[in-house]
Amino acid sequence: MKKSLIALAVLASCGAAMAQSSVTLYGMADVWVGRTKADASIGGVSTSASTSVLESGGFNTSRLGFKGSEDLGGGLKANFNLEAALAMDTGTNGGLSFNRQSWVGLSGGFGEVQLGKPWTPYDDTRAMANDTFNANFAASWTTWQFYEDNPNNTIRYNTPNFGGFSGALAYSLGEDRAASPTNSSSSLTSFSLNYANGPIVAGFAHQNQKVESGVAGILASFDSTGVLTGLATTGKTTYNLLNGSYDFGFLKLVGGVNQVKVSPDGFADVKANEWNLGVDVPVGAGFDVGVGLARSKTESSGVDLTTATGFSIGAKYTLSKRTFLYAAFNRTKIEDETTPGDEAKSTLFGLGIQHNF
Amino acid sequence: MKKSLIALAVLASCGAAMAQSSVTLYGMADVWVGRTKADASIGGVSTSASTSVLESGGFNTSRLGFKGSEDLGGGLKANFNLEAALAMDTGTNGGLSFNRQSWVGLSGGFGEVQLGKPWTPYDDTRAMANDTFNANFAASWTTWQFYEDNPNNTIRYNTPNFGGFSGALAYSLGEDRAASPTNSSSSLTSFSLNYANGPIVAGFAHQNQKVESGVAGILASFDSTGVLTGLATTGKTTYNLLNGSYDFGFLKLVGGVNQVKVSPDGFADVKANEWNLGVDVPVGAGFDVGVGLARSKTESSGVDLTTATGFSIGAKYTLSKRTFLYAAFNRTKIEDETTPGDEAKSTLFGLGIQHNF
Amino acid sequence: MKKSLIALAVLASCGAAMAQSSVTLYGMADVWVGRTKADASIGGVSTSASTSVLESGGFNTSRLGFKGSEDLGGGLKANFNLEAALAMDTGTNGGLSFNRQSWVGLSGGFGEVQLGKPWTPYDDTRAMANDTFNANFAASWTTWQFYEDNPNNTIRYNTPNFGGFSGALAYSLGEDRAASPTNSSSSLTSFSLNYANGPIVAGFAHQNQKVESGVAGILASFDSTGVLTGLATTGKTTYNLLNGSYDFGFLKLVGGVNQVKVSPDGFADVKANEWNLGVDVPVGAGFDVGVGLARSKTESSGVDLTTATGFSIGAKYTLSKRTFLYAAFNRTKIEDETTPGDEAKSTLFGLGIQHNF
Repeated sequence: MKKSLIALAVLASCGAAMAQSSVTLYGMADVWVGRTKADASIGGVSTSASTSVLESGGFNTSRLGFKGSEDLGGGLKANFNLEAALAMDTGTNGGLSFNRQSWVGLSGGFGEVQLGKPWTPYDDTRAMANDTFNANFAASWTTWQFYEDNPNNTIRYNTPNFGGFSGALAYSLGEDRAASPTNSSSSLTSFSLNYANGPIVAGFAHQNQKVESGVAGILASFDSTGVLTGLATTGKTTYNLLNGSYDFGFLKLVGGVNQVKVSPDGFADVKANEWNLGVDVPVGAGFDVGVGLARSKTESSGVDLTTATGFSIGAKYTLSKRTFLYAAFNRTKIEDETTPGDEAKSTLFGLGIQHNF
Repeated sequence: MKKSLIALAVLASCGAAMAQSSVTLYGMADVWVGRTKADASIGGVSTSASTSVLESGGFNTSRLGFKGSEDLGGGLKANFNLEAALAMDTGTNGGLSFNRQSWVGLSGGFGEVQLGKPWTPYDDTRAMANDTFNANFAASWTTWQFYEDNPNNTIRYNTPNFGGFSGALAYSLGEDRAASPTNSSSSLTSFSLNYANGPIVAGFAHQNQKVESGVAGILASFDSTGVLTGLATTGKTTYNLLNGSYDFGFLKLVGGVNQVKVSPDGFADVKANEWNLGVDVPVGAGFDVGVGLARSKTESSGVDLTTATGFSIGAKYTLSKRTFLYAAFNRTKIEDETTPGDEAKSTLFGLGIQHNF
Repeated sequence: MKKSLIALAVLASCGAAMAQSSVTLYGMADVWVGRTKADASIGGVSTSASTSVLESGGFNTSRLGFKGSEDLGGGLKANFNLEAALAMDTGTNGGLSFNRQSWVGLSGGFGEVQLGKPWTPYDDTRAMANDTFNANFAASWTTWQFYEDNPNNTIRYNTPNFGGFSGALAYSLGEDRAASPTNSSSSLTSFSLNYANGPIVAGFAHQNQKVESGVAGILASFDSTGVLTGLATTGKTTYNLLNGSYDFGFLKLVGGVNQVKVSPDGFADVKANEWNLGVDVPVGAGFDVGVGLARSKTESSGVDLTTATGFSIGAKYTLSKRTFLYAAFNRTKIEDETTPGDEAKSTLFGLGIQHNF
């Protein structure tokens, strides 16, 4: 996302004597128009429904943010970031909150500390490299499962960059255990080791989410297509992710593997083995095309539960560094391995615009 | 509304090399203090209640907005607008959302396309010319009925300006049909043809709102004063509006006629025939006075249901281009034509200030 | 709080011809990490629970604000302020609203008028001088009782400054009487007389909150530790506060006394007699240490109900004019005087950072 440097940059360029000001207001407005279709076949009965839609965030989630950085001297900086997701189609009905990022911290030679609600290292590494431009309509984002991102009450440390290598570590305090099983209800540990240098981007990340007590719970039972839906009172979920990309110039190869283990106390573990693979190609004259494939297979006690398979293809037409048009197609199928023949398919096709400010 | 050009203007004036920045933060703070009174006479029993109030948005709805425009070259521009209504009296208790405008799009020689939640062409033409400064306390705004503005999921096209003529067309996808009968529950088509040149402003607009299925519904039955309140599951509402103003310099004549037809499936149609007429006069020394009259008569199957009549008078004292004080008076009466003698009257008187930033 | 002058200052420094722009975007990001502990002894049974927490607003409430001022000529100015509280730890889950300040008004030789939701004069005088840096963890803020600040629908007048003396008067219209007993449900009168000159800050403030009818109510009965919890339908609460500070340079002495009288109709009055005393000491090299003691005793009809006693100590390490680190400790005990031995203790210890922008 591009930034609209409001005060700091302006002050610098004007050479004024006000060293103090510095808030950057930035954002992204992404809207698409298209059609979504849901097909299902359960117990031999087929259903199909489609809708024309205008939605927010086809390529990336629309957002509005405020951030700033203050030079404290000696290489030390104070930093903050407040970033809200926008639903452009409804005017963010339900109310603006800084649900994407909300933190303050210090950075310097030692790295960076962030306190509040930053992304976890796993979140960031997961968002670093995915098929089909890493867009929201990419096969990986619609196929991979069980993901609860963006916890509250988090302390995060980022190492400095060592010749392309960087690491991060975060701990989220499970202080709101009586809450519903979302952002605050569980303690969480996450770390990553990433490498970015020239054409190479690569990363490994681990995340461990523990639901310790109370009303909160984790997924433990299954719906008609084998998707986990039920709740155990306690348990944990572990993620291990390896992904990356290599930019050959004439094409960019992107891929990743992810393993998720859900361990609800009193139920058998459920594992998901997931991968995605994509190619993004600059076709020329501002056009880029990306395609991707992704799969997620779940199993429990050696019995296959579900297989989700996604395919996506997208095209991007650049109008400026801040603005582009896009076309998106995604088809994702979930097969119920315990009842052969039962499956659900979702299809989307859309045309959109993204503007960064 | 005036705009506080933050980055773009500043960068231009500083001659800096940062062509990229451009977010305009703008808004309006409008608060009034006064008294509201509700009188009713139902079945020969009269009631009366009055309250002293401090309210937001007496003249125009208070708001906070972010917008920007990026020059893409060749006359093409990328544009966005996020605009939230403010309730200054409660601190916008309930939460800020971009419920007034939330869209992104492109403009150029071909006109302009907006995607998201723009106003409809009918909304804009309706807001273009009304009695008593087109203020929120104008007779037309308190007397005319059945209006659900500002739909979600909207695609809008604005023509270029042809010698004062401009047109607009919008379609809102009824994608959220299970929602309550508000912004998203119905598909909507709207278009307008407007003319603005020198002293003349004139416009025609049509809007057609269709509730196709589900929980959503439209008005179909009546309260004790004959006002529509009940719900049919499906149906449609059609609006046709003609309004305009002529500025003679020493006074401005404003007026409009509107016809609304509510067609709930399984119920008889209800029609409202509405007009308003106003005169705004610059009295001199920063003072302007506006007066207005408005009427809305409803009928169904040839039987009169209600007659609403409003009178308003307001005065404006200009402190600057961005700030003015105002006095407001409005009395609106609704008579139940099916039960002669039954009526409800509401009166307001207030003094306020509006500041634009 | 420091201000990031975005447009106005920049325009001034650039010498541009745009006299119009002026929105100041400012805020505060304050997060701490620590431990809270709750001990209770009720009827000889002791309980204890502690939690590690990451919280927003340890020193001062995190916030985001927009404000501006327009010079109208002749010393007259139009002013507005919109200020939202932030919960940095949850991303302000629940939604951003301008719940701290939301007003527009005029200022000039006559003083200042504010309309909307400003703080009351009592709120401001109470926030002017308290023990332990007037931080949120100060003994006074955790020990003193019964406080409902920040009403809606308020008209406020501030006198000019007369040689250090200034006064303020506010009236909040109780227009939303059917609401829950919070910001809008009661009419409220508040005034203050403050003095600030060189090392001396001193103030007296009075506030009178009247619950006149309806669903709204005021506190009238008691929980197991003697704290007021019940509701009478009508009644009033009166506050009288005297506080101040004297800065000797090598230390600052801070203190205040407050008397609250809750008069629920149909119940006996409950009175709270409260004081706090603190010393803030600049230890040198950017370090400041503050300590404080506070007490609140409640009684009704000559019978002692509760005694709350708080102790706090904090340290501040300044990184810049806008940023500091802090350590906080607070222990507050409430004894139930009607059942000797029954008491509840809360303890917190934390380390935090505050950054102003």
